[in-house]
Amino acid sequence: MNGIRLSDLVERLGGQLIGNADLEVTGIAPLEHANANSITFLSNPKLRKKACETQAAAIIIRNCDVEFIQQSSFLGTLIVVDNPYVFFAKSAQWFAEQNRRRTSAGIHLSAVVDPSAQIAASAVIGPFVCIEADVVVEENVQIDAGSFIGYASKIGADSHIHANVTVHHDCRIGKRAIFYSGAVIGSDGFGFANESGRWIKIPQTGGVLIGDDVEVGANTCIVGVAGSAVIGRYCTFGGAAMILGHLTIADNVHVSSGSLVSRSIAEPGQYTGFYPLAKNADWEKSAAIVRNLDGMRDKLRALEKTVQRLVDAGHRSTSEDN
Amino acid sequence: MNGIRLSDLVERLGGQLIGNADLEVTGIAPLEHANANSITFLSNPKLRKKACETQAAAIIIRNCDVEFIQQSSFLGTLIVVDNPYVFFAKSAQWFAEQNRRRTSAGIHLSAVVDPSAQIAASAVIGPFVCIEADVVVEENVQIDAGSFIGYASKIGADSHIHANVTVHHDCRIGKRAIFYSGAVIGSDGFGFANESGRWIKIPQTGGVLIGDDVEVGANTCIVGVAGSAVIGRYCTFGGAAMILGHLTIADNVHVSSGSLVSRSIAEPGQYTGFYPLAKNADWEKSAAIVRNLDGMRDKLRALEKTVQRLVDAGHRSTSEDN
Amino acid sequence: MNGIRLSDLVERLGGQLIGNADLEVTGIAPLEHANANSITFLSNPKLRKKACETQAAAIIIRNCDVEFIQQSSFLGTLIVVDNPYVFFAKSAQWFAEQNRRRTSAGIHLSAVVDPSAQIAASAVIGPFVCIEADVVVEENVQIDAGSFIGYASKIGADSHIHANVTVHHDCRIGKRAIFYSGAVIGSDGFGFANESGRWIKIPQTGGVLIGDDVEVGANTCIVGVAGSAVIGRYCTFGGAAMILGHLTIADNVHVSSGSLVSRSIAEPGQYTGFYPLAKNADWEKSAAIVRNLDGMRDKLRALEKTVQRLVDAGHRSTSEDN
Repeated sequence: MNGIRLSDLVERLGGQLIGNADLEVTGIAPLEHANANSITFLSNPKLRKKACETQAAAIIIRNCDVEFIQQSSFLGTLIVVDNPYVFFAKSAQWFAEQNRRRTSAGIHLSAVVDPSAQIAASAVIGPFVCIEADVVVEENVQIDAGSFIGYASKIGADSHIHANVTVHHDCRIGKRAIFYSGAVIGSDGFGFANESGRWIKIPQTGGVLIGDDVEVGANTCIVGVAGSAVIGRYCTFGGAAMILGHLTIADNVHVSSGSLVSRSIAEPGQYTGFYPLAKNADWEKSAAIVRNLDGMRDKLRALEKTVQRLVDAGHRSTSEDN
Repeated sequence: MNGIRLSDLVERLGGQLIGNADLEVTGIAPLEHANANSITFLSNPKLRKKACETQAAAIIIRNCDVEFIQQSSFLGTLIVVDNPYVFFAKSAQWFAEQNRRRTSAGIHLSAVVDPSAQIAASAVIGPFVCIEADVVVEENVQIDAGSFIGYASKIGADSHIHANVTVHHDCRIGKRAIFYSGAVIGSDGFGFANESGRWIKIPQTGGVLIGDDVEVGANTCIVGVAGSAVIGRYCTFGGAAMILGHLTIADNVHVSSGSLVSRSIAEPGQYTGFYPLAKNADWEKSAAIVRNLDGMRDKLRALEKTVQRLVDAGHRSTSEDN
Repeated sequence: MNGIRLSDLVERLGGQLIGNADLEVTGIAPLEHANANSITFLSNPKLRKKACETQAAAIIIRNCDVEFIQQSSFLGTLIVVDNPYVFFAKSAQWFAEQNRRRTSAGIHLSAVVDPSAQIAASAVIGPFVCIEADVVVEENVQIDAGSFIGYASKIGADSHIHANVTVHHDCRIGKRAIFYSGAVIGSDGFGFANESGRWIKIPQTGGVLIGDDVEVGANTCIVGVAGSAVIGRYCTFGGAAMILGHLTIADNVHVSSGSLVSRSIAEPGQYTGFYPLAKNADWEKSAAIVRNLDGMRDKLRALEKTVQRLVDAGHRSTSEDN
């Protein structure tokens, strides 16, 4: 592991040091796992007490937490920043970058690259990669073993295509993309017209457009359909989230894992839609009721009417009494 | 883009032309995206007004919409057909076929094909394809880069296996199959027997049978288990739909995206089962209630009894009054 | 198909034979599909009648079912065991093992293996496999075509990595693992810090640890995140089940297919959470109510109060009457 002096880290990422600036650290870890060679961070105020007991060489904290930590038994260094979680992310990036195995630029002997493809000299093309005609691969792109780039597609500079990814033809991928293994980009959508009970396939005619700085998780499918999904900026979709076609998703929409988006979303925010997990026996009960929720609603309505009649009758009887 | 004269298109796919039959078009697009080189279609009656404003060279329409469009400012050609959506699908197929990059028949030098495999002379086998012993690949099959066909499997004529597909051993795939990238066919099912707390694996003993004209989406898994799932004809399953084993699904069943089929389905129709998406805060509320739905039902029942008692008491009191 | 004499099978797997011990069988099948060359099993008591009509050469049964079957028209052999389903699993394993195509040990000529990797002499490395630096592959491991093993990862003895699997760097896989096609192990988790609306990626710094005897289904993603998911022993997760990060799952937890685990699970048992499938029209109704369940709860509460007032009024009026 390559290390870094705390003073160098702060010079690189900002922040104010309180304590020993010459300490060298080799990694970053959560409060409870950090040791004397690593830094940690305090982002959630609920973890203040835990932070006092960390074995880390240094804690990244907000200004408002400094006094609390200084009055504790923690004797290490403090790095005071506006947003400890962001500082953690950037430190982790720095360590990951240091420890990344670098492959030298060039095309592996076993790769099959069409002569018409334009591959930047700084790109790394791994074993068994297949690149079809008229593909453009920009500077510093890394394409790992077994990936496939279909004809006329373009991979933007500084992108990393992990092993066994498939990018179909006519896709345009922006800069700094990260596609994880098993991702499939630009496969045909699910379009069929019904002719007297027989399904007639509607082929994909366009390609997929992906902007800059997009990360696509392992085994994710991004599928283009005519006149189809438009996804805004800064959106995030958790694992196994699913977006139906022909929808428009606003900027800054965050969809929780396992949720299905079946309508357009116009308003930013966090959206969720998965069935709450329960012990199987309890789920059996709740699922049976969910199946018959309109029966329950009808009973409730009937009851409301009956009660209203009783209330009215009570009033009348009270009036009559008077 | 290769184009086609409208008269040739109609000769090929049927329909009646009103207007300029000599126009050449190069593609098909939705009403709002079509331009002077493309045709469009009016299938949904709600879009009639939109259709009048399209920039398309021609509109595919039903007879009943002709008069409405002719009275509008649209001056292009009309193609009158029974089912515009089907005509759109078939036109899109024609354009896709024209613009498809063709690879010449034969086995790529880098492919590894067992000598016992029978590969039709018209088949196209891409780079890094691995074909095991006793596989049969029929006429006009295309298998793209990185795909794997396990021993004793058979791929029916005119099928297209996209890049990075895995077909395990002993699978029989019908004619005109389309398998998209990342699809896995015939992997072991999820079968285990429990012996005093320890799981004993039940291996797959049969292969997967897939009939003619089946399309399998990207990263779909089709998994065979002994005596297991039987799926009828003309069925469709949306993305991320899931079918448990040992079930029988009737013909003409359509399962919505993201839905899980946990029981056999005997009756044709559209079936759905996903949790409705909501703002996260609203979901938290509804999910908490779903978890305790039987509590709610119990309260409703108790209330029904109480109200019934009140009603009965009212009757009695009324009877006594009389 | 290689066969086995019933007496040899019982010698191997235990159980008591009643009938012809010299019969040779070539496979195992469900009650209704078994024929004179195969054995079958009776595990579910509800299927006793069906068992009497099976065409199988022999039935694996519990002692308590022997009398019932002997009084029926079934004239074949009985194999009496404590747990017929476990005996079925073990028999199926034996048949699968017999009929498995064996590949001779060694590294396929087309594979790309870094010189620093240690590959056991008994391992089988298929075509187009890519093995990076410092990887360790133990005895009797089989890695099928197109799979990728990232640097410094280790694959435990007797494991089988099927075609087109991706194992990222620094993963440690236990003995007897079975990874099916399309599985991705050790891809980056979904971690981002938000800096003034911009997402800062949190890279994965650890690898994935997988114990002995773990089976991972086709296209499953196992994703490591710092300080993240810990899964106990003997757990099972059905297809399309999903486990969020930073959770702890106890031993012997079984999660049903299509269910999402969003909280830690401390207690063993079967857990389920998917929306029950329904005809689409019925689902539309129930989903609309689910969206507004708290409205329904509020109405129920209001009603409870009103009814309570009526009850109280009734009491008062009764008291006043007296």
